[in-house]
Amino acid sequence: MAAKDDVQALLFDVFGTVVDWRTSIIDDLTRFGAGKGVKADWAQFADDWRDLYQPAMDEVRSGRRPWTILDVLHRESLDKLIARHGLAGLSEADKVHINKVWHRLKPWPDAVEGLTRLKSRYIIGTLSNGNVGLLTRMAKFGGLPWDVILGAETALAYKPLPQAYLASAELLNLRPAQVMLVAAHNGDLAAAANAGLRTAFVVRPTEHGPRQDRDLEAERAWDVVADSFVGVAKAMGC
Amino acid sequence: MAAKDDVQALLFDVFGTVVDWRTSIIDDLTRFGAGKGVKADWAQFADDWRDLYQPAMDEVRSGRRPWTILDVLHRESLDKLIARHGLAGLSEADKVHINKVWHRLKPWPDAVEGLTRLKSRYIIGTLSNGNVGLLTRMAKFGGLPWDVILGAETALAYKPLPQAYLASAELLNLRPAQVMLVAAHNGDLAAAANAGLRTAFVVRPTEHGPRQDRDLEAERAWDVVADSFVGVAKAMGC
Repeated sequence: MAAKDDVQALLFDVFGTVVDWRTSIIDDLTRFGAGKGVKADWAQFADDWRDLYQPAMDEVRSGRRPWTILDVLHRESLDKLIARHGLAGLSEADKVHINKVWHRLKPWPDAVEGLTRLKSRYIIGTLSNGNVGLLTRMAKFGGLPWDVILGAETALAYKPLPQAYLASAELLNLRPAQVMLVAAHNGDLAAAANAGLRTAFVVRPTEHGPRQDRDLEAERAWDVVADSFVGVAKAMGC
Repeated sequence: MAAKDDVQALLFDVFGTVVDWRTSIIDDLTRFGAGKGVKADWAQFADDWRDLYQPAMDEVRSGRRPWTILDVLHRESLDKLIARHGLAGLSEADKVHINKVWHRLKPWPDAVEGLTRLKSRYIIGTLSNGNVGLLTRMAKFGGLPWDVILGAETALAYKPLPQAYLASAELLNLRPAQVMLVAAHNGDLAAAANAGLRTAFVVRPTEHGPRQDRDLEAERAWDVVADSFVGVAKAMGC
């Protein structure tokens, strides 16, 4: 019996793995900016915003800061970037709308089909650093057919802390080896494997744009390696 | 503007409101017992099991016992009832299977249609004392199209404690008044209303069988009163 034969649930990293955050943000804010007469290098803006993601979570991971959801961290980063990029004339309502662009991210083209196939046989859910409200709204926006929304907020721990993976398995009343993490990031999978989960790598070679230099291939022998969610579904017998 | 116009999410009590636990358990265990040659008064067994539900949670609500999920409470009650009803010859695997009957409960006939209609406009989710794993499997069994699984386990508080309702709204980043609880139980709705939620009563006159003597009508002027989830959908503009 292969290790993956024991799997009952597939949990997914979301930003970059399920949804194309960079293109979605660029397109959304370009349209928004045009409507408001606000000009910016929105590609640089998207990249800068994402660059502030790990440092913001590090404050919480380290215990220097009490539990804080990602919507709030995103908003603090946004306020820094509005100043850095010199964007003027944005109302509070505009800033709230911009911050919620993370709720309006589009799935990669194969995502909904692959998830739908996997859902016929497995529990499918999120295992994301996004907060529950963000992930719930993103799923409705993009038609993602999750069975369950799990992740940092339900674990009160940001990935890659072990508790993020362990608490997610526990909430499903499964042993870690009965849960597979699907992610486009080798580091996330390494942390999941250390916590005892099964692993599936899906390459997303343009997550970071045309000059992406990381996560272009599987860096270890993950249980599944595929180039789409449909490939994961096939590998898992769906 | 009516109070309900501000609602963004409808969260549902599950046992009795969404699913017909009593008929489901009687039918499931009657078949199981016939296959195993185990005879019992399964209707009485179902009622006795449900009667042990509130006392078991009271141990946790009171703080006399640390947080314990419903699957575990159900199993403890099951072991008591197996002795009380004199059921012999059940293996551990049989007991595990019987305990998971709570994962195999059938929706009331109007439930899936009403939820599907509501889902087009609102976030729909659970707000149940069932654990996340139980509710997730029940949804797959019955085709319940939840956006999100919330309740006692994500709040670490059993209804009707206020924290169960407040934490569920908080996880959706909503104010209590933006969340409506849908329930077949006046007491659950009263606790939700005290916590600031909106309320919808759906009468389920046979939840407790043909001689039901409680929750046969709305005991207060809840925001919505209906006799099915389709009625709730209509009242909410879906």
